[in-house]
Amino acid sequence: VLREAVASEAKQKALKAREAAVVLAGLSTAVKDAALLEMASALLENQQTVLDANAQDVAAGRDRGLSDALVDRLSLNPKRIEAMAEGLRQVASLPDPVGSIISGWTRPNGLVIQKVRVPLGVVGCIYEARPNVTVDVVGLCLKSGNSTVLRGGSEAIHSNTALVSILRTAAGKAGVPEDAIQLITSTDRAEAQAMMRLNGIIDVLIPRGGAGLIRTVIETATVPVIETGVGNCHTYVDASADLAMAEEVAFNAKVQRCSVCNAMETLLVHRDVAAAFLPRMARRYEEAGVELRGCPRTRELVPQAKEATEDDWYTEYLALILAVKVVDSLEDAIAHINRYGSKHSEAIITNDYKAAKRFTEQVDAAAVYVNASTRFTDGFEFGMGAEVGISTQKLHARGPMGLEALTSTKFVVWGEGQIRQ
Amino acid sequence: VLREAVASEAKQKALKAREAAVVLAGLSTAVKDAALLEMASALLENQQTVLDANAQDVAAGRDRGLSDALVDRLSLNPKRIEAMAEGLRQVASLPDPVGSIISGWTRPNGLVIQKVRVPLGVVGCIYEARPNVTVDVVGLCLKSGNSTVLRGGSEAIHSNTALVSILRTAAGKAGVPEDAIQLITSTDRAEAQAMMRLNGIIDVLIPRGGAGLIRTVIETATVPVIETGVGNCHTYVDASADLAMAEEVAFNAKVQRCSVCNAMETLLVHRDVAAAFLPRMARRYEEAGVELRGCPRTRELVPQAKEATEDDWYTEYLALILAVKVVDSLEDAIAHINRYGSKHSEAIITNDYKAAKRFTEQVDAAAVYVNASTRFTDGFEFGMGAEVGISTQKLHARGPMGLEALTSTKFVVWGEGQIRQ
Repeated sequence: VLREAVASEAKQKALKAREAAVVLAGLSTAVKDAALLEMASALLENQQTVLDANAQDVAAGRDRGLSDALVDRLSLNPKRIEAMAEGLRQVASLPDPVGSIISGWTRPNGLVIQKVRVPLGVVGCIYEARPNVTVDVVGLCLKSGNSTVLRGGSEAIHSNTALVSILRTAAGKAGVPEDAIQLITSTDRAEAQAMMRLNGIIDVLIPRGGAGLIRTVIETATVPVIETGVGNCHTYVDASADLAMAEEVAFNAKVQRCSVCNAMETLLVHRDVAAAFLPRMARRYEEAGVELRGCPRTRELVPQAKEATEDDWYTEYLALILAVKVVDSLEDAIAHINRYGSKHSEAIITNDYKAAKRFTEQVDAAAVYVNASTRFTDGFEFGMGAEVGISTQKLHARGPMGLEALTSTKFVVWGEGQIRQ
Repeated sequence: VLREAVASEAKQKALKAREAAVVLAGLSTAVKDAALLEMASALLENQQTVLDANAQDVAAGRDRGLSDALVDRLSLNPKRIEAMAEGLRQVASLPDPVGSIISGWTRPNGLVIQKVRVPLGVVGCIYEARPNVTVDVVGLCLKSGNSTVLRGGSEAIHSNTALVSILRTAAGKAGVPEDAIQLITSTDRAEAQAMMRLNGIIDVLIPRGGAGLIRTVIETATVPVIETGVGNCHTYVDASADLAMAEEVAFNAKVQRCSVCNAMETLLVHRDVAAAFLPRMARRYEEAGVELRGCPRTRELVPQAKEATEDDWYTEYLALILAVKVVDSLEDAIAHINRYGSKHSEAIITNDYKAAKRFTEQVDAAAVYVNASTRFTDGFEFGMGAEVGISTQKLHARGPMGLEALTSTKFVVWGEGQIRQ
């Protein structure tokens, strides 16, 4: 009975979100933008409330022995709250995707058919310790006319409760139904599981977090999921590469920020340039503190590299570790990437026209680069504005997802009594 | 151990399909179209083989006591085989969606970004007794550059085996890898379950069949699913409707073909026109053999109608049965549809501008009609050519799905050494 009572929080709140979604779908851009700006101000005005709640989470986390990295992700400060507010203001400045008529035509029988962009309805988000995801997701969903049902990590429950309370009040002030923003406050796992199976109430689930969380959601959910994030990205230095360019790009892809999904995890080098390229590159990596794990041919050229195992080719390190493999050909590089990669971001460094063409055609990934760092796979860097995440699946959206990824379409058909013969 | 061996057929064949998919993604339209035409000819040339295999299925089905309706769906004859071949020819004549550059732009740092249409990769289809689905899906997937893994109903196993063998040989003749077309021949359920969980090997699952099959796939699959088909469609006769038009449209939507997903299942009538409209309409339905199930107010006007239960409002009859409800307002009609409908196709009959606008905006469905029959929700009727199915979910594709629904996109980024600052 307790389990039933607990499970009902997700359903109850999702149903409220669903009702609010009907109103949201009809809101003007002006009202939505005003609400976003109101929310930004409210976060700053109520900063102390948020910081106090966050301090409770941080203290509890320390007591439970959370790692320093996790505590850092969890922690808020005035600068981080200002960044959240700024994020909301940026979303307000983006164009509203809802209501655009994507295409339209008239049929021989006179039916006028229009394909119109509409909100998805209710977006569920399951995430981990970062409280900024709360604000981020609410902002993007509101702009695209969607209600949100949030389920954050239990570590951040006080912070999320404070944030959602502030966001709801601000939304209400601006004429947006408060029920469009729902936070599941029970930290019982049964609650998250119930949420993942609310077909017909929640339209889509977006898990945001590590590979484990994403896997759990995919395994458990019956609601459609947009898979985001895992990036086992490669850079392939072709036989024809400009080696100075290769060095800069390969360094940037690994070192500029190693903890993100678009950072490189494996470097592939054509055997013809391995001797000229690898020892020099290895020195540069070593200076930056990168641990190298190489195939046998790599280790002949870079003796200090550890031995790479089969597991290394599959691993998203998100750390200053790099797997390195010497390959015999472009074809071998493509085969390696298609076998071990996570279909996120893949780069070739080459001056060969055919190699560039073949690589972009045959590598199966959300983003394929010629002569550039994989680190550019990002909504802002692609010029799409704020980003919902980076989809690594092929349905609905692939690669950096902007506001459009939070919409669906509807056919509107205008007739004058047409019947089917 | 046996279970393991059985389960491995799905994985083994899907892996072959995956390998072939790399080749398929690079095939020219000319090769794919030649293969489709070759398949069409091969079906006709080998007609007797197909008919013999089908006779086995039909005999076995009769022995197992299949209903006449199911035996009819299962049965092939020369006319149905000709229709399959014609379907392949039509798909050959459609434009190839693969390779189109959907959009592209240059970033301030000089990166050139292109969004390119690519095949999904490997499409899995789980379906029931109709052998024509086999040919249909293979044709649509081949044209859009995808490999197929098919799992048809056990009732049709001989027919499907014969068809797939013919299609594979014809594909091979035209230069398409035979392994792009895979049929799971074991009829063990564990096989279908294994197939639904081949994440990373199968890119998308499309269940084709009744509500039960679709539900099972959604419950079981971890591979992304495109939900198709269930249609609990409504026609709402507004207070301002042209009642003669309403009569024609409501008759067509129920009677013209009642066994399909875009047929009407519930008729909603504004109370102000119920007395003028319902008795007359009821007579016409009765002449056509339609059983009526009404709300209390309907039964006052149409005493011969049975009493509708709560279940009736949820039911997709796919038969000559119609639920009828008198409503107090447009708002009530919209609320009823959004509560009980399956988000497939919904129509309003009205002469009121505001009512038309509000209905199209607030009804949440794949297709929303003003003054036309819901029976038009169909790829051919919308002018999109052959149809993969009708999506009732909001992700990826909504409404009739043409070849584009079988594709994804990829970002191709052309640089000259750009690194992220």
